[in-house]
Amino acid sequence: MACLTDPSLPALARASRDLYAAVRRDAPLVQCLTNFVSMNTAANTLLALGASPAMVHAAEEAPEFAALSGAVVINIGTLSTPWLDSMLLTAAAAARAGTPWVLDPVAHHATAFRRDAVRRLLDLRPAVVRGNASEILALAGGQSASKGVDARDPVQQAEHAARELARARGTVVAVTGAVDFVTDGQREVRVTGGSPWMPQVTATGCALTAVVGAFAAVARADAYTAAVAALSCFGIAGRRANARADGPGSFAWRFLDALAALETDSLVRESPLA
Amino acid sequence: MACLTDPSLPALARASRDLYAAVRRDAPLVQCLTNFVSMNTAANTLLALGASPAMVHAAEEAPEFAALSGAVVINIGTLSTPWLDSMLLTAAAAARAGTPWVLDPVAHHATAFRRDAVRRLLDLRPAVVRGNASEILALAGGQSASKGVDARDPVQQAEHAARELARARGTVVAVTGAVDFVTDGQREVRVTGGSPWMPQVTATGCALTAVVGAFAAVARADAYTAAVAALSCFGIAGRRANARADGPGSFAWRFLDALAALETDSLVRESPLA
Amino acid sequence: MACLTDPSLPALARASRDLYAAVRRDAPLVQCLTNFVSMNTAANTLLALGASPAMVHAAEEAPEFAALSGAVVINIGTLSTPWLDSMLLTAAAAARAGTPWVLDPVAHHATAFRRDAVRRLLDLRPAVVRGNASEILALAGGQSASKGVDARDPVQQAEHAARELARARGTVVAVTGAVDFVTDGQREVRVTGGSPWMPQVTATGCALTAVVGAFAAVARADAYTAAVAALSCFGIAGRRANARADGPGSFAWRFLDALAALETDSLVRESPLA
Repeated sequence: MACLTDPSLPALARASRDLYAAVRRDAPLVQCLTNFVSMNTAANTLLALGASPAMVHAAEEAPEFAALSGAVVINIGTLSTPWLDSMLLTAAAAARAGTPWVLDPVAHHATAFRRDAVRRLLDLRPAVVRGNASEILALAGGQSASKGVDARDPVQQAEHAARELARARGTVVAVTGAVDFVTDGQREVRVTGGSPWMPQVTATGCALTAVVGAFAAVARADAYTAAVAALSCFGIAGRRANARADGPGSFAWRFLDALAALETDSLVRESPLA
Repeated sequence: MACLTDPSLPALARASRDLYAAVRRDAPLVQCLTNFVSMNTAANTLLALGASPAMVHAAEEAPEFAALSGAVVINIGTLSTPWLDSMLLTAAAAARAGTPWVLDPVAHHATAFRRDAVRRLLDLRPAVVRGNASEILALAGGQSASKGVDARDPVQQAEHAARELARARGTVVAVTGAVDFVTDGQREVRVTGGSPWMPQVTATGCALTAVVGAFAAVARADAYTAAVAALSCFGIAGRRANARADGPGSFAWRFLDALAALETDSLVRESPLA
Repeated sequence: MACLTDPSLPALARASRDLYAAVRRDAPLVQCLTNFVSMNTAANTLLALGASPAMVHAAEEAPEFAALSGAVVINIGTLSTPWLDSMLLTAAAAARAGTPWVLDPVAHHATAFRRDAVRRLLDLRPAVVRGNASEILALAGGQSASKGVDARDPVQQAEHAARELARARGTVVAVTGAVDFVTDGQREVRVTGGSPWMPQVTATGCALTAVVGAFAAVARADAYTAAVAALSCFGIAGRRANARADGPGSFAWRFLDALAALETDSLVRESPLA
């Protein structure tokens, strides 16, 4: 891309590598309030990355736990009222404790219940919002072609919406698809790599959001680089797994193997930033 | 089998193939209210098939979403009162919207709570009921040798019960096992294929029910052919995966690879109908 | 180890083998009230072992079902108040019915809610408690270095705590890690094997607890041998899978294949007891 505000992709790649080394060293505790479909996948992906997953979501303990966590990840994939109550309390507790939190607004445009839930969560100032193009378009008030959880819109079409959303909410927005787009409203970058099998493996996006949480835990204030580093790991490991996969079933486990084997230096040597 | 009321297996195979082509073309949205054990597996299986899964189950939104869905799948595997309430509301909403819905009465004979739940769900007129022999026998009022979720009875023993149930309820009944049996009370057919590893992989039956939903979405009124086509895809992909699997672990991912690679024409060329 | 009170490891290996043969023959029904992350994995692991999983957890039916079950497994990994209520009722129902039950106190030291829950569950007399070193240390009132679900303490450091806990509660305690430790307060043994990938695959410990339940179902009063046999199966199958795995993704399915292929006699021929 013509990189308007971040002229130095190599510097961003090196900063991503340094964050990845910190994840490997610190094994940050990532608390996930995520959907039932993705819990197992997100936990395995965090473990393969080198982070420490904690699926602690009930209102009885999740806010208390947020003060111990390195980051909190909130994903509305299978939402219900008790879960939403806990998410709101936990996001608020994370904010009080200075724990960064990441939002995955799964299919938030599909029902009135979700639309309202995401509006309330956004008010609690997530450090990063990660969604597909349809979700980000709808979040910024635009029109989406999607009715369910799948993205029916190309990432490129959501870039303007992502910038607007980032500026309006003071957050980092990561739009993922064939080529990802990350912006904090000023800087922006594209991340390549991945695999055409990824959209055919459920919870891949949710697991990526959890990985953004792991990087946010070690990056603290620099949520932009955290998102870029997370997407870079997915891009490279996805490309490697793709080379040997015969379908979505074999891609899923090969991706975990590739992520676990990823050398920190690959984020510079095989940088997927563009 | 001696095919009493459907003399033309080749015509049924061709109709199945055409439905499968429609699934691949339309990627129907299949809303699942399914159990916690099977959510991830059902979503991955629907994606491998070419359909679009939506795990939307809470009473706050599931009935609203049913009007958008191509089909609704209701599975009582891990039932509780709030889930049952939502299932009843969603099945009723599906009926009002003309959305076909499919019932998986997992282990409904195991407890009083389940028996009552299934009786109320059946009154809401599912298009297809998919179960193992023990479940279908018990549903038709017969005796089953099973106490849990496993089938302890052979499919053949449940054929009479399946016909009775189909006629009494005006539904299609699919009994699955080593050789499957499908009937709408008039027509009937057996579906071969699959793998001896299938009963050793949890949620295989639940995923199959979700796939029946995908076919019901494109078949609309012809739920009989929808069920036959779904079982045919499972039969062929299962047979192919079986040829290269070394156990239940490798079977599971090889099955997803095989399902994703299945050519529509294979439903005629390798028809498992008998 | 210097085996103080159980001089005959070969006899214990043979008793383990006999229990494993009984599991394969009887396919005991194992009722699991387990966390959302591990349900699918635990069910697949029980099936690979040859047992029959039943994920029946709601208060509306779980206590009733406990009387049918061969064993009950209670795991607090993703606890909430309705689940805890059902766990307490089901453990009590199991006790009344003479059904042995097994406790997995996942990360019980992380929050006040969990600490209180585990205290109440322990009062209902589990036959076996299975945890990592950090969990067992904290359960016996000691200090743990862990704040989340991962063990940060070596097994050896928890051996004294395990003995104390076993004596105080009249239960068998299994501490799992690189080398496992099992004690009933009098006898004790170490179990080797496994794989360094195991801690990188989520729900491995939870699945092991479920397998302890399968053995408890056939062992009835002899919970000590049940725990040893379960850990032995995991040790041997884990070692075999490790030899061919390239990472946590391939280890997971290779482990299921290895467990399904495990010969009963391997518990003697390749005994991991030490």
